[in-house]
Amino acid sequence: MILVDGEPATAIDARDRGLAYGDGVFRTLKCLAGAPLWWRDQYDTLCRDCAALALPVPDDDTLRDEVGRAAAGADCAVKILVTRGSGARGYTPPAASPPRRIVMASALPPMAQSGAPAEVSARLCSLRLAAQPRLAGIKHLNRLENVLARAEWDDPACFEGLLCDASGLLVGGTLSNLFWLEGNTLCTPPLDECGIAGVTRARLLRRAARLGLASRFERRPPAAILAADEVLIGNSLIGVRRLARIDDAELSDAGWRIRLDELVHEESD
Amino acid sequence: MILVDGEPATAIDARDRGLAYGDGVFRTLKCLAGAPLWWRDQYDTLCRDCAALALPVPDDDTLRDEVGRAAAGADCAVKILVTRGSGARGYTPPAASPPRRIVMASALPPMAQSGAPAEVSARLCSLRLAAQPRLAGIKHLNRLENVLARAEWDDPACFEGLLCDASGLLVGGTLSNLFWLEGNTLCTPPLDECGIAGVTRARLLRRAARLGLASRFERRPPAAILAADEVLIGNSLIGVRRLARIDDAELSDAGWRIRLDELVHEESD
Repeated sequence: MILVDGEPATAIDARDRGLAYGDGVFRTLKCLAGAPLWWRDQYDTLCRDCAALALPVPDDDTLRDEVGRAAAGADCAVKILVTRGSGARGYTPPAASPPRRIVMASALPPMAQSGAPAEVSARLCSLRLAAQPRLAGIKHLNRLENVLARAEWDDPACFEGLLCDASGLLVGGTLSNLFWLEGNTLCTPPLDECGIAGVTRARLLRRAARLGLASRFERRPPAAILAADEVLIGNSLIGVRRLARIDDAELSDAGWRIRLDELVHEESD
Repeated sequence: MILVDGEPATAIDARDRGLAYGDGVFRTLKCLAGAPLWWRDQYDTLCRDCAALALPVPDDDTLRDEVGRAAAGADCAVKILVTRGSGARGYTPPAASPPRRIVMASALPPMAQSGAPAEVSARLCSLRLAAQPRLAGIKHLNRLENVLARAEWDDPACFEGLLCDASGLLVGGTLSNLFWLEGNTLCTPPLDECGIAGVTRARLLRRAARLGLASRFERRPPAAILAADEVLIGNSLIGVRRLARIDDAELSDAGWRIRLDELVHEESD
């Protein structure tokens, strides 16, 4: 089901600035029995992203209600898009156009379903992410880099592609954030120049100390993480999964995956 | 008037990948009495841009017919969007989804109308364009940088904002390509890392020799062009206009503007 500004619909105005320029942001949520996981983090992150683009943020209760209506009691993935609404030709933002909300439910992808494998394989993508500090971290609608990177492989045995910046240092996956463990430290790339700073990443970093883990931002080339104790990816749909290999390299398993997946799912903040 | 895949419409599928990811390209054409200017260059450039994203390119005759129907005999601006069509959730490009064509006509903006001023003012934007060689030059739908740059000013006396790359070297305007003259040389920034390589630019570079001009790609900081013989901007709607000032700096007029505007409008190739 799709709701556009709260009304069931299948289409949006052809003059929407989300289409014209990617002028908007989005979120992907997991819903179980129609209830969104991690709503507080998801809404707060939407607010952060809207603020980065000077987009008015939809009302919390209105949006949560629409997520529930789109999910309709099911286990599903719900995508929220917020665009700057319809505009005339040209880049100039409209003076007082209301933002447009699009809330759409889809079936959970296999890796988001219970019983999905705890371990997946990844490959290194050749596309390098461009550095744009004004948009770094934000889940905005300009995602051609992700599309080009995802088009680099079609082997279904490979779940994720890892992306580096122009210097060849790791940023994250096409659809997930990247983590690795070195002793009692949870490492993840900083995302101040490119990449998307997801909700799973924020929850892990905020809570790592509960498992006795320090957390640290690290810029590393891919070769440097092959010897880590364990390498993980995470997003709101799949939770935390271990990378069993990157291309031909087998990666270690230090047993952190299940603990971090439970940590990110804890309800208490 | 708007045509979506050849049919009059005001809306597009909410699952269009142009909206979801900016997964598509566009063109802006000037039509006079319903006839598109520079169709051959526009269509060839659309083909170049589609190829860069591995998008199937719409048929020439079909698209030109749709431009004519949207323009409906008027002097107008016509925008063509080609997206990868509708897709399921996720970045993976659909296997064999046909591209979607959206052709929409708008009134000519004031600067594209006859009698518009030959000279305009520009300012230097603080936003720096990110370097992404895979997307450089292409008029794709990921245009948040242009939106953010255009939002930097609202003084109607300023027509254009000039953009630099991360090194502080000029790339072009938010909606135009940039040129300057030094003696008998027409200079313009190379666009192999960022920026959009427009049809006006291609026509000028291809034809400069007819006016006895050499052409050269130059990476220059803004201060370096203030002393040029003449600074110009161009696009398919406005043709070639002289920059009379950049911020507080008055720029020289060597009388090239009208000759270059006539050159770009010549019908013979």
